[in-house]
Parts: sequence; C-alpha cells; structure tokens
Amino acid sequence: MADATAPARPAKAAVVGCGVIGAAWASRLVLSGVDVAISDPSPQAEAIMNEVLANAVTAWDDLGLRTDQRGTWRIASSIGDAVADAEFVQESVPERPDLKKAVYGEIETALAGDAVIASSTSGIKPTELQADLAHPERFVVGHPYNPVYLLPVVEVVGGEATTPGTIERAQSIYRSIGMHPVHVRVEIDAFIGDRLLEAVWREALWLVNDGVATTQEIDDVITYGFGLRWAQMGLFETYRVAGGTGGFRHFIEQFGPALEWPWTKLMDTPPFTPELVDKIVEQSDAQSGHLDVRELERIRDRNVVGFLKVLEANQWAAGAAVAAQRQGQAQD
Amino acid sequence: MADATAPARPAKAAVVGCGVIGAAWASRLVLSGVDVAISDPSPQAEAIMNEVLANAVTAWDDLGLRTDQRGTWRIASSIGDAVADAEFVQESVPERPDLKKAVYGEIETALAGDAVIASSTSGIKPTELQADLAHPERFVVGHPYNPVYLLPVVEVVGGEATTPGTIERAQSIYRSIGMHPVHVRVEIDAFIGDRLLEAVWREALWLVNDGVATTQEIDDVITYGFGLRWAQMGLFETYRVAGGTGGFRHFIEQFGPALEWPWTKLMDTPPFTPELVDKIVEQSDAQSGHLDVRELERIRDRNVVGFLKVLEANQWAAGAAVAAQRQGQAQD
Repeated sequence: MADATAPARPAKAAVVGCGVIGAAWASRLVLSGVDVAISDPSPQAEAIMNEVLANAVTAWDDLGLRTDQRGTWRIASSIGDAVADAEFVQESVPERPDLKKAVYGEIETALAGDAVIASSTSGIKPTELQADLAHPERFVVGHPYNPVYLLPVVEVVGGEATTPGTIERAQSIYRSIGMHPVHVRVEIDAFIGDRLLEAVWREALWLVNDGVATTQEIDDVITYGFGLRWAQMGLFETYRVAGGTGGFRHFIEQFGPALEWPWTKLMDTPPFTPELVDKIVEQSDAQSGHLDVRELERIRDRNVVGFLKVLEANQWAAGAAVAAQRQGQAQD
Repeated sequence: MADATAPARPAKAAVVGCGVIGAAWASRLVLSGVDVAISDPSPQAEAIMNEVLANAVTAWDDLGLRTDQRGTWRIASSIGDAVADAEFVQESVPERPDLKKAVYGEIETALAGDAVIASSTSGIKPTELQADLAHPERFVVGHPYNPVYLLPVVEVVGGEATTPGTIERAQSIYRSIGMHPVHVRVEIDAFIGDRLLEAVWREALWLVNDGVATTQEIDDVITYGFGLRWAQMGLFETYRVAGGTGGFRHFIEQFGPALEWPWTKLMDTPPFTPELVDKIVEQSDAQSGHLDVRELERIRDRNVVGFLKVLEANQWAAGAAVAAQRQGQAQD
C-alpha cells in the first residue's frame, strides 16, 4: 500500500554519463526498482554498466537487501532518447563546466517540464552550471561518494535559481533509493566533503613531495588509525569523546591552541611537477599494483558491506540508512 | 616456546600521565600481559584507569581476544617509583614542552640505562623534547590514536639524537602489544596523521564559522560517506580505485587540476573567537549532548570492534594487526 509520507521514487530516470560514477548511480536506481535509460557516447558504457551493476548486486546480496525488485535499464541512442520520459535526470559527465552546460542544453530540449536535473559535480557551483538553462529552477547538485550503490550520503546543493521545491524533491528522490541527503545550505566551491578531502589531499601531496612518507605509510596511518573512527563518528563527535566528560568546550580549550602552531602554516600546494607525479605513481604501484582495480573494488565493497552490517546491528550512523532501505523494500 | 624473531614484549612498563590516552596505553599493556606502574598526580587517575580498563576488557572480549593473561597494574607514589624497574616508559602528560621536559628529568633520575622512553605527543618534535636528557639516544615519539587499546597504529618518530636501535626497539615493543608501528622517517611537526587531521579540522572550522554546515552535517558527510571508505583503504588506494583501470597517473590527470581551483585558497585559519567557540559547542551539544561521553565511548568501541572483525575476516588492512595479535596470544 502506498504511504503518503513515503519518499517519491521515480518510475523512470535517466543517467547521463556512464563512467564509474554514472554506472553506480544507474545501478542504485535499477536495484531500487527504477527503470533507467543511460546516455553515454563511449562504446565502453554498456560494459562498464554491466561490470558495476554486477558489483552492486553482489554488494546488496551480501548486505541482505533484495535484488529481485529491479527496474530495467538500457543504453539510449542519444541524450534526448534517454531523458524523453524521465522524471529525474542524474548527470555524471566529466568535470568541465562547458561540457556540462552543453549536455544540459540537450537534456532540456527533450525533458518534461517538471523533471529534476541533478549534477554529480564534486565542486562546481550550481549557480554557474544552471546559468544557461531555460528552467534553472529545477536544477540541483546531488554530489555522491563512490561506490554510489553502497555509500548513502549525497550532498544536495541548490544554485541561486533553484527553488526550495526542487531541493525537497531531490532529497525525497534520493531517500527513496536508500540515500542520506545532506542539504548544503550555502553554495560554496567543493561543498562540504570535498572541502575536507581537498585539504587532506593537499597535505598528503606535501608529505610525499617532501619525502616524509610514502603513499603506503599515509594510507596505513589512515586505515589502522583514524579511518576506523570515521566510519562511525565524524570529526566533531570523535573530538567530543576525546575531550572526555568536559564536553566540546573542554576539548577546544585543550586542542584549539594547536591551531596556532607552526604546522598550520604548511598550506600552499606543492607544484605538480612530473617528478612528483612519477613519485606518487611509483609508490601507488608498489602499494597496490599487485591487485587489479576490479579486485580492489570487490575488496572495498566486501569491507564496506561488513561495516554497514555492523552499524545497522548497532543502530548507529550509516546503519540507519540501511535499516530504512530494508524497511522500504519490505513495504514494496 | 620463545621465538627468537618474536617482538620483545617488556615484562614491566611504566605509564606516566593517566588521562584518557595514558589509561588506554596502560590498558593495552596490561591486557597484553605486561605489569604496569602508573604515575599521575591527579586523584582521579585510579578511577579513570578502572573505567578505561573496563572498556578495554569489553572490547577485547567482543573481539575474541583473550583477556585472561593480564599483567598487573598499580598507581605508583611518584614518577621515580613508577619507572624504577620499567623496561619501557610511555609518557602521556599534557602537550606542554616545559612540562614534558620536567617529567623526563624525573624519569631519568630513576630509570635503568637501557629502557626506552616514548612520548605520546601528537605533534611536538622529538628533537625538542629530548634536548635536555642525559641520554637522549633512547628517547622516541610513539604517537597513538584513541582508543589506544583498539586502534593499532602508532607513529614512531626519532629525534636527531635518537639511535636507530631505539627506533627498532620501540617498534618491536609496540608490535608485541598488537600494534602497527609506522616509522615517520622525517621529523616534522604533527607527524603524518595530525598533519592530515589538522587540515580537516581547519576546513571544518571554516565551514562552521561561515555558517555553511553544522557539526552534525559535517559529521554526517564523513560517516555516511568517505569515512566508510577510510576504515579500509586510505586516500591513495581509494583514489587509485576511483581512477579505474588507468592507474594512479590517470587519476592525477583527471583530478590534479582541481588543486588549482579556487577552493584551495581557503587555507588560513578562522580566528578562534568566543562566538565561534560558542557556536561549535552549541552545535555539538545538539548533535551528541543526549548521550553521555562514557556511553559514546562504548558505542564507538562496539563499532570499531565490529569493523576490525570484518577486516580480519576479509584479511585486509587493520585486520592483519588483529590476526597477528590473536596468533601471538595463542603462542603465549
């Protein structure tokens, strides 16, 4: 029975751009029961989709989610063909504003007036992306994290012309496919997550550039250390606990002054010389080159599935998204 | 039977400073079969130790590690009393160089000549800390991540006067209590992990300061997003996978240019005004204030134990440290 308060799952959606991210969006949509039309000029698109969908099915099976209520999918002959009867479009083409805007032009020509257009951009402001649209009010950023079929978070960001109704509808659509939308209320470059990731990336480049640590050593400090914390409590909640019974004010009193210490000065970006690129590539090969990237993807998915099960059993953090998804499937 | 290549576990160790970190060190040592003498001027030290050890026992029980081969522990009457017969000293007093140096003076007066002194400092260079020691060659930084009794990583950093033998011995001691030492070969402020964490903290402060996101929203992006990845693959391995079959060079070609984008300019630190502190404290209270910090610690430990079990079953990342620990216990 339909629940009036249930999130509005679209019957038909279009995915424009079918690389790793686009294919993972399509897989999440298909497994959630949505019929998906995919547009991508590459002859590899169908193979990528088959590969990523197979990974997604394995992951959902392992997680104990149903995979027998799938929607259909097809590779469309053009963007117009893909979006013609779509209620929702997710765009995941390369991060070039000119390319994205050209794609939106093609989408608008064929798209029904009330469909939402969402972009997977990880950093370009929606106000810039929507500038040339005839109907910019229905454009929104929906920035996911890979693997999109497993990680629940999606950053929803409106531009100056985006209406509150579009933000609402996008969030509702994302919830209907098991995601946890976070509305980024102020439009900034890189949104929330990539602001944080960009900062880490910059520091990590310095560490490799200066010969302080290899990619393996940096990754070890993350995976044997604070990465284990961040799968379940973020920066602030972790530090709250570190502050002990004194609460966050006590933590800031202890730790805040460290912001004035010299290491905060290391904030410019190392020049991306061929030597630095070679160094990183060689270290990454030494670290992970013995495993095929497809094998790494399967390992990653097995691990993340395990974490999500733990969190669901403990009724904590991302476990809530999986529990809601499981409940939603039971009601279908 | 003793294995000549087995890491050298000390019979007796001293823990100087028994706050959250010191007590967690003492707990890991005790559960690993080491007799520990604890020195801390606070009347709360014994209560903190009892509380943290109880958490550690629960965590190890849940993880399926033996907790019946414990060493003893006692609160010593002075630093001299604590270290007199110790083979290894772990110092975890507050992050003030003057205080730490004064403590080292007291330690040296009573300590046997061949014992290693390790500091838990999260950012002060060992060359500075060892400057006044009569035997600086046996001083080293051993920087852990909380909860120390669960997270395996420890950054081992020598100062200019530290001998290679001391680095070796410290790593061996840490391995003997189930840890994964990462030798930071170049002495820099904040070492590896806190360089990364400091960068995230700075960006997060800006996001709160500028009203872009609340502490809850930032933590959600982490725990429903990239935090789930980082418990099992670090920055570089994750991006290698994101680069697809093209390897890391392909990833850098795609993503490297983003470093030149405007968001990399947001690199100074927001002033720590009372208003900013109030804002963070209020948001953190709204996010986590309904849970006692002790309850948060237990939740964290249950989650991390679950992740470690998943990783051990999948023979991946920090799972290796747990497997080695389990094997070590079986041989005892």
